[in-house]
Amino acid sequence: MKKRFKKIPETVIRRLPRYYRYLERLKDEGIDHISSRKLADVMELTASQIRQDLNCLGEFGQHGYGYKTSQLIQVIAKTLGIDKSQNVVIIGAGRMGQALAGYGRLNKSGFNIISIFDKNPKVIGNIVNNLKVQDVEEIDGFVENNLVDVGIICISNDEGPMVAEKLANLGIKAIWNFSPVDIKPSENVIVENVHLIESLTILSYKLREKKVIDGMVDEIIGD
Amino acid sequence: MKKRFKKIPETVIRRLPRYYRYLERLKDEGIDHISSRKLADVMELTASQIRQDLNCLGEFGQHGYGYKTSQLIQVIAKTLGIDKSQNVVIIGAGRMGQALAGYGRLNKSGFNIISIFDKNPKVIGNIVNNLKVQDVEEIDGFVENNLVDVGIICISNDEGPMVAEKLANLGIKAIWNFSPVDIKPSENVIVENVHLIESLTILSYKLREKKVIDGMVDEIIGD
Repeated sequence: MKKRFKKIPETVIRRLPRYYRYLERLKDEGIDHISSRKLADVMELTASQIRQDLNCLGEFGQHGYGYKTSQLIQVIAKTLGIDKSQNVVIIGAGRMGQALAGYGRLNKSGFNIISIFDKNPKVIGNIVNNLKVQDVEEIDGFVENNLVDVGIICISNDEGPMVAEKLANLGIKAIWNFSPVDIKPSENVIVENVHLIESLTILSYKLREKKVIDGMVDEIIGD
Repeated sequence: MKKRFKKIPETVIRRLPRYYRYLERLKDEGIDHISSRKLADVMELTASQIRQDLNCLGEFGQHGYGYKTSQLIQVIAKTLGIDKSQNVVIIGAGRMGQALAGYGRLNKSGFNIISIFDKNPKVIGNIVNNLKVQDVEEIDGFVENNLVDVGIICISNDEGPMVAEKLANLGIKAIWNFSPVDIKPSENVIVENVHLIESLTILSYKLREKKVIDGMVDEIIGD
């Protein structure tokens, strides 16, 4: 039977990886069941928020008994599509590309990096995390012969949107973009743009705010 | 005169780095003035959202004339505390630490990486982005002799919270955490926890959603 597609609000989706992370940790600690109240404590949310969020995923959790950790992990993994492994290629074998190629959490969450590409002749042929860096000119053939779910763009110049278009034309439907220019999603391709600097900038704001409150500097807003 | 501290909602703060990024790009393209309507088009927000957000920063923008790009950049930079340079140390000279040490946007936004530390004897003494990796045992003396605003934790094990406590005791007030365990902020220290995998997981959800809509897979929520 074909199952109905249930749309989950984006705000909830954006919280799910955090649930997943905390629940995996609880499971590792041997905790089989957890009440929404206890989960709320751990995650610093309210119990009602947690019940609301998890209700979006279906019917589970028993009154007075709580959630079964492993079941919840399974449902979240399935919802997020990380219950099955996905093939990933990296474009750009610079420092960020190398860091992501060696980022343990990717593999743990079912993302298999199957190839890494670069256009720099000095980098092509190098070994990064057991993968030989391939010439980006050869990507067409590679994608034709391998199922690729996600392309990670790790170039440092402004050519990200161009690279993304090429990947989309090859049939890659999801782009994780670390290059400086935002890539716009289209009908054919889904995009998450990552700007690491944004979270550092927010940290900087909070530091400035703290300094003002602590009386170390005078003002935030001039005039 | 001591200036009044004006609290800006966190949701607005979290959007400011994006404004900053777009405005810098517009300035680079030679655009001196921009209406909220045009800015809304570029940033894919509504004009009223933009006027609301920027109103939080003070009084500017003239009816029928719009915002002066450079002024807006200046005010946002000041609000975010990136108008002045800040000293940063990195703990952990693995791939992610190296990637951040060489991440051009940091320097552009006024974050100067002044040292990088590791505990691995094989790594200590290596050169990363013109900095010699120092023994983490020497961090006390270093922080005593240098003004350090931000500590970036790039270790891959579970010792992040311990490292953060040490940095806080040394007087470092802001932690940018890339290690797998969340660090809780305290009265003395501000924290931004970064989990790269979260945005990839969201991409994965959207990919799965697209496949369901396109009829490539049957369901998202099972029973």
